[in-house]
Amino acid sequence: MPDIVNKVKDKVEQVFKNLEPHKGEDSSKDDSATTQSPKDNLNGPSEPQTKPSDKPSGGEQNQEEHGDEDQEGPTKSAMKKKKKEEEKAQKKAEKAAKAKEAEQARQQAEEPDYAAAHYGKLPLHQSQSRPNRKRTDIATLSAKNDSEHVLIRARIQTSRLQGNRMVFLNLRQRTDTIQAMLAVTDKQVSKQMVKWAAGLSDESIVIIFGIVVKSPEQIKSCSVDDVEIHVSELWLVAGVEGRLPFSLEDASRSENAPEVEGQFSRVLLDTRLNNRIIDLRTQTNQAIFKLQHAIGDLFREYLNNNGFTEIHSPKLQGAATESGASVFKVGYFKGNAFLAQSPQLAKQMAIAADFERVYEIGPVFRAEDSNTHRHLTEFIGLDLEMTIEEHYHEVKELLDGMFKTIFKGLKESYAKEIAVVGKQFEAEEFKWREETLTLTFKEAVDLLVEDGVEREVLDDINTENEKRLGRLVKAKYDTDYFIIDKFPLELRPFYTMPDPNDPTLTNSYDFFMRGEEILSGAQRIHDPEFLCQQMRAKGVDPESMKGYIDGFRMGCPPHGGGGIGLERVLMLFLKLNNIRRASLFPRDPKRLEP
Amino acid sequence: MPDIVNKVKDKVEQVFKNLEPHKGEDSSKDDSATTQSPKDNLNGPSEPQTKPSDKPSGGEQNQEEHGDEDQEGPTKSAMKKKKKEEEKAQKKAEKAAKAKEAEQARQQAEEPDYAAAHYGKLPLHQSQSRPNRKRTDIATLSAKNDSEHVLIRARIQTSRLQGNRMVFLNLRQRTDTIQAMLAVTDKQVSKQMVKWAAGLSDESIVIIFGIVVKSPEQIKSCSVDDVEIHVSELWLVAGVEGRLPFSLEDASRSENAPEVEGQFSRVLLDTRLNNRIIDLRTQTNQAIFKLQHAIGDLFREYLNNNGFTEIHSPKLQGAATESGASVFKVGYFKGNAFLAQSPQLAKQMAIAADFERVYEIGPVFRAEDSNTHRHLTEFIGLDLEMTIEEHYHEVKELLDGMFKTIFKGLKESYAKEIAVVGKQFEAEEFKWREETLTLTFKEAVDLLVEDGVEREVLDDINTENEKRLGRLVKAKYDTDYFIIDKFPLELRPFYTMPDPNDPTLTNSYDFFMRGEEILSGAQRIHDPEFLCQQMRAKGVDPESMKGYIDGFRMGCPPHGGGGIGLERVLMLFLKLNNIRRASLFPRDPKRLEP
Repeated sequence: MPDIVNKVKDKVEQVFKNLEPHKGEDSSKDDSATTQSPKDNLNGPSEPQTKPSDKPSGGEQNQEEHGDEDQEGPTKSAMKKKKKEEEKAQKKAEKAAKAKEAEQARQQAEEPDYAAAHYGKLPLHQSQSRPNRKRTDIATLSAKNDSEHVLIRARIQTSRLQGNRMVFLNLRQRTDTIQAMLAVTDKQVSKQMVKWAAGLSDESIVIIFGIVVKSPEQIKSCSVDDVEIHVSELWLVAGVEGRLPFSLEDASRSENAPEVEGQFSRVLLDTRLNNRIIDLRTQTNQAIFKLQHAIGDLFREYLNNNGFTEIHSPKLQGAATESGASVFKVGYFKGNAFLAQSPQLAKQMAIAADFERVYEIGPVFRAEDSNTHRHLTEFIGLDLEMTIEEHYHEVKELLDGMFKTIFKGLKESYAKEIAVVGKQFEAEEFKWREETLTLTFKEAVDLLVEDGVEREVLDDINTENEKRLGRLVKAKYDTDYFIIDKFPLELRPFYTMPDPNDPTLTNSYDFFMRGEEILSGAQRIHDPEFLCQQMRAKGVDPESMKGYIDGFRMGCPPHGGGGIGLERVLMLFLKLNNIRRASLFPRDPKRLEP
Repeated sequence: MPDIVNKVKDKVEQVFKNLEPHKGEDSSKDDSATTQSPKDNLNGPSEPQTKPSDKPSGGEQNQEEHGDEDQEGPTKSAMKKKKKEEEKAQKKAEKAAKAKEAEQARQQAEEPDYAAAHYGKLPLHQSQSRPNRKRTDIATLSAKNDSEHVLIRARIQTSRLQGNRMVFLNLRQRTDTIQAMLAVTDKQVSKQMVKWAAGLSDESIVIIFGIVVKSPEQIKSCSVDDVEIHVSELWLVAGVEGRLPFSLEDASRSENAPEVEGQFSRVLLDTRLNNRIIDLRTQTNQAIFKLQHAIGDLFREYLNNNGFTEIHSPKLQGAATESGASVFKVGYFKGNAFLAQSPQLAKQMAIAADFERVYEIGPVFRAEDSNTHRHLTEFIGLDLEMTIEEHYHEVKELLDGMFKTIFKGLKESYAKEIAVVGKQFEAEEFKWREETLTLTFKEAVDLLVEDGVEREVLDDINTENEKRLGRLVKAKYDTDYFIIDKFPLELRPFYTMPDPNDPTLTNSYDFFMRGEEILSGAQRIHDPEFLCQQMRAKGVDPESMKGYIDGFRMGCPPHGGGGIGLERVLMLFLKLNNIRRASLFPRDPKRLEP
């Protein structure tokens, strides 16, 4: 058993005893009858809350300023950390005269600290006790809570010392911030306590007790702008080791803000992704991933309401299934396996197995060395497949209904998150029409030709022309969302059902958002012999995909479906401009960490 | 463009024209004004609906019996299939005198078929038209629908010819079956039509028109037992090539039914899994996977209601993350990657990134050569992680609330599916208590010792003793679900938080269903230095997991969580006895297909 556990054990109950609400400024804590902890009180001013613990943490980086320098047997790594801390201290010294600070610290060390029991670092949280005290969410606070006592766990986003008697803390929980203030008072808050608070690193996690006070003026720097918290106790839960790779303020700035030399550093995407944990803490990213969750939920809800069954198909495949696209190879005991490039095969097998309507949300893997703004090697596929009764437009219309439900759901229930993201990534609001615009491939080509693109290059519509088409459609129809139907046979995979009247066309469609493809789908060929025939026509040997074809030999109903990239929908709805921003821990040919 | 497309094109509109509802027995079809198809009617008796198409299908296996033998240029594969058909025909001949049949067939071929426009094989479905006609779900039908006309797409589960003027079809949609009957009538149903219907292979997909008729007595062989359909039109959508590997009747029999020589063959699990598409069509499997979907939905709903965010973490990892367990290696461009054995690291990183409460539903991969009833190499993990305010029992209680919500949700909303599965897999109803039984590890050991197990072997509770404990708990507390808390430190991974009072114990728990572990979880160590210390104590070099530890250096709140195997919960709730039955397309060391 590690020493540290025994060491902190005794202190924990003591400190938790002090995590009781207190009324007004009265510093006596003897009303803490609900805890079952020992009666010991916190020790005097030179005791644990201002003494460095065995573990370095952000809260103690400024220990020198506290005039408390005892260190027992520093290890190499401790020395290294010490050096970092010193660098930080040095930086601080540029703001104020160091000599004066040291003098003040000495004075304070000599003064008895009447606030000693109101602040400090908590011992390691090991679930020592459970007083069942209510914690408050910042987002719920407003002027109506004026004068209420609250207990809050939050991060210190920034802090600002005013004179040596007052410190302002900007406290953050996910997408919400509130201002907290510590000011020296006769019995509750001491000068030492204010100093200690000001010395806590940004991004430290603290627990505060305080009282909600209506603010005389709007607090523009915080999302809760009509109240602040007057703090009476402040406890450090977890500090920060070393320096932050970048400040959250820098990481949260509008992408369109002009960079002024020395004013702030633009945080590059690679730097963000290398330090993704910090980057994800920005209000923007908290909002982005709430929206990612929302898209998944809206997708599922719509499909559940339409009689779909969720399936989970294996990502480990015995053979590379779809020809063409590259596939990752996996060592599988004494043989090999391959990572599924899509649940296409499994979805169709589920249809042949009478599931009627299925969807899957899961990772898909693409071993393509594409280093673009919109390619990942692993992304989340929202896939669905359904039987067709009369016409593949049943599928197209269901998909369309699904997208409109998602757009509507985001707009109506997540306006706050969309607005938060919009502050960093400015974008025109995403627009769609009640009646979705559907162009045939031919009509789309005609639009481009009309706009000056040479018809000869439009056998396929490349990425550049896709975007151009998006702009044309936006100008003409005022929508960021539309469908192209009836793609030429030669552009689609062998399993696509040809059009019944024009053998050069297919029963297939793509869906677009802001001029980029987000869904590709079609009616599939459900007849095994015809499937073989089409494979041969596309130069694929049916023998090489026997398992796939056999899936249809036991009778498969007509069916169709589509596949959506979750990250793409999120990126395009919010106009994030790079798909990596829509993936929690993105993977591309050059990135496997973190 | 393949010939077949052009060939069938013309026929399609004609046939679809005939897919109009008709009133009573009137065979005139001229009221089909809503379709836009050509006016051509279906041709005479020797025309397409009784003529073999270019693609062999189950519906045509009995063509010889129709006395219709013209074949244009049979290919090798056609010859092969022909041979199979002949074998089948030969089998049929054992039931009735072949000579007599041939005689009848000849007679029928000479007779004009007045029902020629009422049955046959439909051309390949290419979305030729869209008359927008309502299709009926079998499950919705009952005596209240008496005399209604219906249009139904379903599989033929079995068929039974009675004399030569009547055939009974058992029609199936997912978990529901209904009886349909074709009887020769003056104008609508001919002897040829009855014969053709009787010749359709089991598992053929058909579209029928008919009238709902209240049955004078209960139809025991069908789930809809108070009505049958009197069929007036019958169309084959997709047939079956070759023989079924086993009949659905055999595959659906109770696991406890005694096997009688020659009466039926027990279908072995391996045979089922090799032919999973057919196996999945049983009503039992349809119900199992509806229940799998339900568990996922109930899990999500509960967590969404409790403030969780769904995340998707990458399965491709730069390094093998958790030590000990085996991991699959993936070729990744010029280097290697590894498949995530759990989202443990990513979940904890999300907590360090302020997500507060997260869950993930996704595949986890285990490269363990375990060939048991409860191990898969790929399964679906239901994982969650959350910050702890005061005590890790907050997590334990949330998980407990979640399981009870799932059990309750299944029992209340999926009684039908549970009953369907129960017919094949007999099981005592799953029981749980309003107040969940929680034993400490020590109490669990005491129970086993009391029952006669030697204390010396109980440093850990092995699988056998787990099951024994399950039986003891069931006998004593009448519950199939309970929790063990406070596992010894030596049994848990290095990242488990020790108990604050007894350094040999941890803040960790396992959850059990029917004596098998379904969840393992704990409070985690959130302090980087303490984490390193615990790693060293377990013989793990912290340098080897630097990325993991760095995740905590920027400040991480106290947190805990757990991981659940979806397939295990499903298997144990239903008592399926083998986890492969709870996985759509299971993967184990010996199985990568289908």
